[in-house]
Formats: sequence, C-alpha cells, structure tokens
Amino acid sequence: MILDGKALSEKVLERVRIKVQKLNRQPHLVVILVGDDTSSKIYVKNKRVAAEKVGIKSTIVELPDSITEQDLLKRIDDLNNDKDVTGILVQLPLPKHIDKNKVTMAISPKKDVDGFTPENVGKLAIGLEPYFYPATPQGIIMLLDEYNIPIEGADAVVIGRSNIVGKPMAQMLLKRNATVTMCHSYSKDLECKIKTADIVISAVGKKVVRCKMDKKNSVIVDVGIYRDSNGRLTGDVDFDLVSKSAGYISPVPGGVGPMTIASLMYNASKVY
Amino acid sequence: MILDGKALSEKVLERVRIKVQKLNRQPHLVVILVGDDTSSKIYVKNKRVAAEKVGIKSTIVELPDSITEQDLLKRIDDLNNDKDVTGILVQLPLPKHIDKNKVTMAISPKKDVDGFTPENVGKLAIGLEPYFYPATPQGIIMLLDEYNIPIEGADAVVIGRSNIVGKPMAQMLLKRNATVTMCHSYSKDLECKIKTADIVISAVGKKVVRCKMDKKNSVIVDVGIYRDSNGRLTGDVDFDLVSKSAGYISPVPGGVGPMTIASLMYNASKVY
Repeated sequence: MILDGKALSEKVLERVRIKVQKLNRQPHLVVILVGDDTSSKIYVKNKRVAAEKVGIKSTIVELPDSITEQDLLKRIDDLNNDKDVTGILVQLPLPKHIDKNKVTMAISPKKDVDGFTPENVGKLAIGLEPYFYPATPQGIIMLLDEYNIPIEGADAVVIGRSNIVGKPMAQMLLKRNATVTMCHSYSKDLECKIKTADIVISAVGKKVVRCKMDKKNSVIVDVGIYRDSNGRLTGDVDFDLVSKSAGYISPVPGGVGPMTIASLMYNASKVY
Repeated sequence: MILDGKALSEKVLERVRIKVQKLNRQPHLVVILVGDDTSSKIYVKNKRVAAEKVGIKSTIVELPDSITEQDLLKRIDDLNNDKDVTGILVQLPLPKHIDKNKVTMAISPKKDVDGFTPENVGKLAIGLEPYFYPATPQGIIMLLDEYNIPIEGADAVVIGRSNIVGKPMAQMLLKRNATVTMCHSYSKDLECKIKTADIVISAVGKKVVRCKMDKKNSVIVDVGIYRDSNGRLTGDVDFDLVSKSAGYISPVPGGVGPMTIASLMYNASKVY
C-alpha cells in the first residue's frame, strides 16, 4: 500500500483554503531568503505558490549573502513587531557568517510557522501545545492518520536526529504513545532495529533502509530526497526491496515532500 | 559493580563548595513551598541542608495551600526581578487549583535551576546549551561518567517519560550519541527491550525491571523510589535478580537520590 502524500496534500491544502476564506483577516507569511542558493530559491518559490493557492498573502524578502547577522536580526525584529505579518520563516541554509540558531531564536514564537524556536520546541517536548508543530513531522502524522495507521503502542524507529525532522518526529510519536527509538550515525545493528519495527521514519539522505521487514503491517516513511548517480530523485529506502515485505510505504517523490508543504500552509493559516 | 551515588554526591558537593567560595558573589536559591505536604517539606529541608553545606544562601518561601495562582505568579515575578536571587525552584506537587505548567513557565530561564522552563527544555532538545539541565538526568550522567561507562553508540532504554526525568534523560543520552528508546505504559514487550539494552534507566515508581540481562556489561540505573508493602524503601529494579546478570547497578537508596540533590546544587551554584 502506497502512502500517497501527493493526494493527501491536495486535500489538506483545500481544507486550509476553505479555513482561510472564513478567517476575518488574511494571514501573511513572510519568507526570508538570504543569498542565491538555487535549491533554496526553488523551495521558496514552491512555498509562495502554495500560499497563493490557499489564499495566504506571501512576501519574499530577498537579502544579499553579505548581510550581517545584526542586520538580519533587526529585520526579523521588525517583522515580529509588524502586526500585518502573521508568520515568519527563514529559508535555510544561511551563509556561514550567520549563526543559524541565533536567527531561529529571534523569531517570535507566535509567528514561528516552522516551529523551530526554543519555546515551541520546548512546549512540544514538555507535552504542552506549541503555537506551531514543525511542518515535516506534522505532515507525516497527517499521512499516518489518513491511512488509519495505529501509532499508540507501536514500535517506531526514527532514523536521523535533525531538529527539523528526526527530533520533533520522535516527540510527536511519543505524544501519540508510540515506543520511540532514535537512531543515527552512531547506532549499532541499525538493520535489526529497522526490520523489527512497526513504523520506520527515515530522514538521513542516504540509502539506509534496505532490508526485509519482519512484520507484514510495518509502515515505512521515507523523508530523504536527493539525486542518485543517474540524476534520478530517490530517498533513504530501497523501495523495490522494502515494499515487498512492508505493509505501507511512502514513495519519493510524491510522499513526504508534498505533505511538508501542505503542513506548512496549515501552520501559515494559523493567526495568533 | 554498584554505582555508588552516595559517594559521588559527596565529591560533587565538595567541588561545588570550592567553586562557590571562589565566586565573587554568593548564589541565592529561593525554594517556594506551597501547602504542607509532608514529603515536600522533607525534600525542601534536604535542599536547604545541601545548600548550606556548599555555601549557597537559601530561602524557603512557605505559602498557604489557599494561595491563588495569580498571587503565586506575582511572587515568582518578584523573584525574577530580584537581583539578589540567582535561582528559583517551586517544589512540586502544587495544589490542584494551580496550573503547574503556568507556574513553571513563569520562572525566568536564567534562574530556572530545575531546567523545566520551555526555553531550557527547548534548548536541550535543539542541541543548544540550556542555562540549566534538569537535576536528575544530569546527576545520572555524572554517575555514568564517574564509572567510565561508554554512552556513545550504546543502546539505551529509558522507561518513563516524565518531564522531570524520562524525557530530558532521553535528550541527554541522545546528545552523547546513544541510541535511545523511550518506553512507557503503552510499550509492548518491555522485558525484551530491557534485557537486550546496554543501559537501562527506569523512572516509573513500579517494579518494572526484573529480568536477566543479556549483556554482561549492561548498566541499570534505578530512579524509582517508594515504600513497598513492608514499608521498606525500594525502586523500579528487582535488585537481587537483576544484579546477578548486569555489569553495573545503582542501589535504592544511595544511588540516584543523592546524585539528584548534588546535581541540583551544581545548578544552584551557577549565576547568570
């Protein structure tokens, strides 16, 4: 069974569009793009297209590579205080002379649509309701729920411990009462941990999931996306091999990618 | 091999005492005690005794059970603004009419010696340096380090997911590159997860660890402490059974308990 992120993302975006129509004010997402990284430009464009689709106003603030950290922080502060702006997102990566953490932490938690500020991360970790959940793990939970996959009591293996995917994913699965194992580059016997799991979420960017699954109903979610040596888009999972033994599997592309952007738009439609 | 928390706690307290002597100002810890819960009174007294021992000024603010949430928040706000006060701790539990989370969140992160505020929890979760790490898991890490127990790459099982122990413990073990499995009341096959682990940390308050360990060098840390039906202090681990197959085991009492208070004093000696 394919976890069709493309199809669900359309449904989610439509729900967000209807919600936005009913709001008594239009949400306004500001995306800050520093420098001219090609991939970043594509991501930012995709976000703008999605925002337009659901009726969210979006502004892209393009800043030169040479901007100082202080000036960037000042821009964020201005946006924090701008009542017309409801969401702020800084496209990563940032130039090396700028401290990514300082910049992330400068965003007001109530406008932090990525859910990356310490206050939002901390609330999630404590079990309180953050203003925003990080988009990718939130999108994955939506995808699991769409297919009625039981999370409570499931043995979930999360591979990769980034602040953007792995760590918040673990928190969100734990909140839904899964037993969560956090794996990474130092983990021993990774294959054994993967094959015995009920749910595997891989967010590494390398072909790490390539074994026969023990359980017929096991669920594989592939967050990795990169080009292989033939230039073809691929993920962390050896799809042909793993799909034969797993119950559910998300494809790359068409799985987690579209869900991330739909989930981000869900966040951007929230007005605090 | 016994993980002697009593002995290490004395060493840590002595180190803190020497550090405090060298500070150019005396740290001042304020402990807020609401109501007259007998156990809470004992805990608070123990904290004061430890603070005196290491040369930290301590004040206990005793407030009646009947205090309103608003008044309690006001008291905390006053302490946040009091430059003489370097650490604030609210003894839990609080009366039912007071929202524990609101109270915790009201403490300034720079005085939050328990490390429970969203900002400190969030920083830990993101991999940044919080002002304070929660005392119990920090004390456990000190104990593991004292016995040169390898954490990197170890399969660690954390049982219990409280904000005070289980969840920050998982984060701290992950930070040290362990593969961490978070278990709780919904976990399946708990015994199997325990027996195959390298490190087991149990913080439940029930006798949940009672199996033969597979690995000779496995490490068992017992955070649970309660009285059994005979009125004897006991923990989560069936000590007689488990100690035969494990490499290292912490006793109850004399293991994690004294380390928690030493670790708290380490926190209380920090001045921001």
